Amino acid sequence: MSPLDPAIADRLKRTPDATPGSEGRGLVAAIAQQHDTGEVLMLGWMDDEALHRTLTTGRATYWSRSRGEYWVKGDTSGHAQRVVEVRLDCDGDTLLVKVDQTGAACHTGARTCFDEDLLGG
Amino acid sequence: MSPLDPAIADRLKRTPDATPGSEGRGLVAAIAQQHDTGEVLMLGWMDDEALHRTLTTGRATYWSRSRGEYWVKGDTSGHAQRVVEVRLDCDGDTLLVKVDQTGAACHTGARTCFDEDLLGG
Repeated sequence: MSPLDPAIADRLKRTPDATPGSEGRGLVAAIAQQHDTGEVLMLGWMDDEALHRTLTTGRATYWSRSRGEYWVKGDTSGHAQRVVEVRLDCDGDTLLVKVDQTGAACHTGARTCFDEDLLGG
Repeated sequence: MSPLDPAIADRLKRTPDATPGSEGRGLVAAIAQQHDTGEVLMLGWMDDEALHRTLTTGRATYWSRSRGEYWVKGDTSGHAQRVVEVRLDCDGDTLLVKVDQTGAACHTGARTCFDEDLLGG
């Protein structure tokens, strides 16, 4: 059972896919944005438990789809995300997590995960 | 067959789910951001064809998971998104689409889909 506030949990529209290791719980997309500059840093995924931890610890916590485990951003890299606010979108399937990012958000060392690959424009 | 540039298509990491009506093609998440203010406007989904249309028409075009059809943002509401640039993230499963949004991005009439539901912070 997730300890996420039921008033919040009732409003999440999760992915239908069973996530390996996540006991079939669905996920919502979580956009991490630097709170003051507006930079979009990365997109991660949260289940109810990850959202609960994010809201209650003040540290952005994701569900890793590739590793099948919870992942507190910065625990290994030091590049933590302090949570400033969390918003849910109009149809309940996406979170906007405004954070204060320490250092690089991307595992490549880039500030954001979108810095290096311009497709057009 | 999608007419998307194969050099781009090869780098997309799509959702594994077969999307009804989308001939089993997977999707990537697409974050729409107002190019000058940095506001995160909404999150939509694109398959290869939607990305191709977005890159070549200059109008943000999504795949509607609920309606099972392509959706040119603003075609019914008038609230179009002119594409300024499109970026792909480091692991190929998320697009950042910087746009110039006409009017409200959200179907509720709010400027963004995240304006009305603050969960914490």
